Amino acid sequence: MNQVCQTRREKLRALMHEKGIDALFISHEANRYYLSGFELHDGQKNEYAGYLLITKDGKDWLFTDSRYWDAAKRLWDESRIYIYRANPAGSINEHIKQLGYGTIGFESKTIPYAFQKSFSEGLHCVEGDGLVEELRIIKDEHEIACLKEACALNHKLMQWVPSVCRPGRTEKAVAWDIEKFFRDHGASELAFSSIVAVGPNAALPHAIPGDTVIKEECPVLIDVGCRLNDYCSDQTRTIWVGSKPSDEFQQTMEFVRTAQDAAIAAMRPGMPVKEAHEVAVKVFEDAGVADAFTHSLGHGIGLETHEAPSVNMRSDAVLKPGMVITAEPGLYYPEWGGVRWEHMVLVTEDGVVRM
Amino acid sequence: MNQVCQTRREKLRALMHEKGIDALFISHEANRYYLSGFELHDGQKNEYAGYLLITKDGKDWLFTDSRYWDAAKRLWDESRIYIYRANPAGSINEHIKQLGYGTIGFESKTIPYAFQKSFSEGLHCVEGDGLVEELRIIKDEHEIACLKEACALNHKLMQWVPSVCRPGRTEKAVAWDIEKFFRDHGASELAFSSIVAVGPNAALPHAIPGDTVIKEECPVLIDVGCRLNDYCSDQTRTIWVGSKPSDEFQQTMEFVRTAQDAAIAAMRPGMPVKEAHEVAVKVFEDAGVADAFTHSLGHGIGLETHEAPSVNMRSDAVLKPGMVITAEPGLYYPEWGGVRWEHMVLVTEDGVVRM
Repeated sequence: MNQVCQTRREKLRALMHEKGIDALFISHEANRYYLSGFELHDGQKNEYAGYLLITKDGKDWLFTDSRYWDAAKRLWDESRIYIYRANPAGSINEHIKQLGYGTIGFESKTIPYAFQKSFSEGLHCVEGDGLVEELRIIKDEHEIACLKEACALNHKLMQWVPSVCRPGRTEKAVAWDIEKFFRDHGASELAFSSIVAVGPNAALPHAIPGDTVIKEECPVLIDVGCRLNDYCSDQTRTIWVGSKPSDEFQQTMEFVRTAQDAAIAAMRPGMPVKEAHEVAVKVFEDAGVADAFTHSLGHGIGLETHEAPSVNMRSDAVLKPGMVITAEPGLYYPEWGGVRWEHMVLVTEDGVVRM
Repeated sequence: MNQVCQTRREKLRALMHEKGIDALFISHEANRYYLSGFELHDGQKNEYAGYLLITKDGKDWLFTDSRYWDAAKRLWDESRIYIYRANPAGSINEHIKQLGYGTIGFESKTIPYAFQKSFSEGLHCVEGDGLVEELRIIKDEHEIACLKEACALNHKLMQWVPSVCRPGRTEKAVAWDIEKFFRDHGASELAFSSIVAVGPNAALPHAIPGDTVIKEECPVLIDVGCRLNDYCSDQTRTIWVGSKPSDEFQQTMEFVRTAQDAAIAAMRPGMPVKEAHEVAVKVFEDAGVADAFTHSLGHGIGLETHEAPSVNMRSDAVLKPGMVITAEPGLYYPEWGGVRWEHMVLVTEDGVVRM
């Protein structure tokens, strides 16, 4: 892991050089972990385990507090670990000033305003967003192996989930069963809050599992993922509980699966991701149902459930080998619900494979 | 709930007036919920469900996206709900500019830098941290009832927990049992990441439950809490697994319980909280073990596990009726572990009661 992180930091230095950044301050948790292996989750909500300073001359710093000293020195050159006390931003600022770098980049989208204000005092700071994300968009072998493993657990769950989606059970109860299944099989947490939506609830854009009860002969949309070995999975299936799927359901399922198959079949390196979205839209347009497809085709996934690239009409990203994205078309009807179907796919040298 | 929130907003207006703030932009999740009842948890990690603008003339705004329209209008005057699309900060900025308020406060400690930058363009903005927290420090009847209920579930768990702390089981397995107990009894989530620390691990400042196995005759420190009806609980017990507690353990337990009892007995309205901390320190000093007490006596607790006031030597807060704080002295020894014991207490008109 140390060597892998070192290589990532070297690549980041090249991107920093292009942007004229002498030292980049990393405050975003997933980026810190990607570059250091240091504490993806700090175990206490709302606290920060630490920060990095990646420098043009390779003298990189890890900032943390005394609780993490032991964990930090297992991963980082002790002479470049800085332990802060009561006022992290102020003391990091003092330390960085002494190092004497010219232009300091920072991650403006996630760093809190007050922290940045103290941190930047007397320094020449510029926004340095997106550089680490640009590296993270292409997964290496280790990351692909982790994602496949998380994905495999998600497939296993989807095989099992019909057994707990029985008439009389609530969305909430099924969601809790799903969480226990993931955790009992080694996941550290959910990758995101599970969606279990019965009937018309599947058409709600904001479907939190509630007290709605599964009935005989009704659709249930299940969109769930886990974090396993730090990497996220994300899968959606829509199942029919009962033996007589309605005509609307069967027809909608066919459109959705056809759109997903077509989009995935079209994907290859060099293709703008928005074209993949367009392929799915085209299938829906031909079927006269395009208005019922109300969201993006998908998103990148890795250390975070939603990461670059976005897979929609506004994206200017191009598919490249090593990207892992979701393909999750859906059609929604407030009267009875809807269907969404999702796979994660890995872009290879000559196409994509479902994970 | 609507009426309660309305009253809170009126109190906030008085504080804003003192600070010369014409409109206060609320981005901190717990503060938003406290003032509006709107979505403590948005169900998607790393996303914001919305924001508030509390104004001097009582024309308060709720900002959210279209997913939350139905939830929002159940709680808020429809004519003052603003639905943003792709660029929340920019569109909120445009809208607020049109409203024409003079000085706009914002919560600098939690708002991301880039959001604040777009949000504040062309507005006269000032830091308005701590005003809502000042209100939240005194709990009302409903809040005290919720906290008592969360606390009662925590007590129930502590009664049960020795049954799962058996020799051969790992910290991790016990922590997962604890989480399931809380959730199966109605908690929506853990209030914070559970600490289950076997033997010497209890002395680590950063004790994440791991693969350490409980042995015959060893201490286990358990510091856990749940969120029930939106409010948090937090309790610590240290138990001895086996029938022959060591002399060190028994002696340390006696010091810790004595210090806790003394601190709680001394607490009353009007007392500076740092004096409560000093009472515990004095007990440890008299016993010659004060060096082994390495943290604060406690913290406020409510919608967040850690909220105002801090209960330590640096705090300038004074105890007032309606405050809920923890009292959690501990003594730690790297060779064998340590003991911490914690209760939540409610400050009353003439003292405090354990919850």
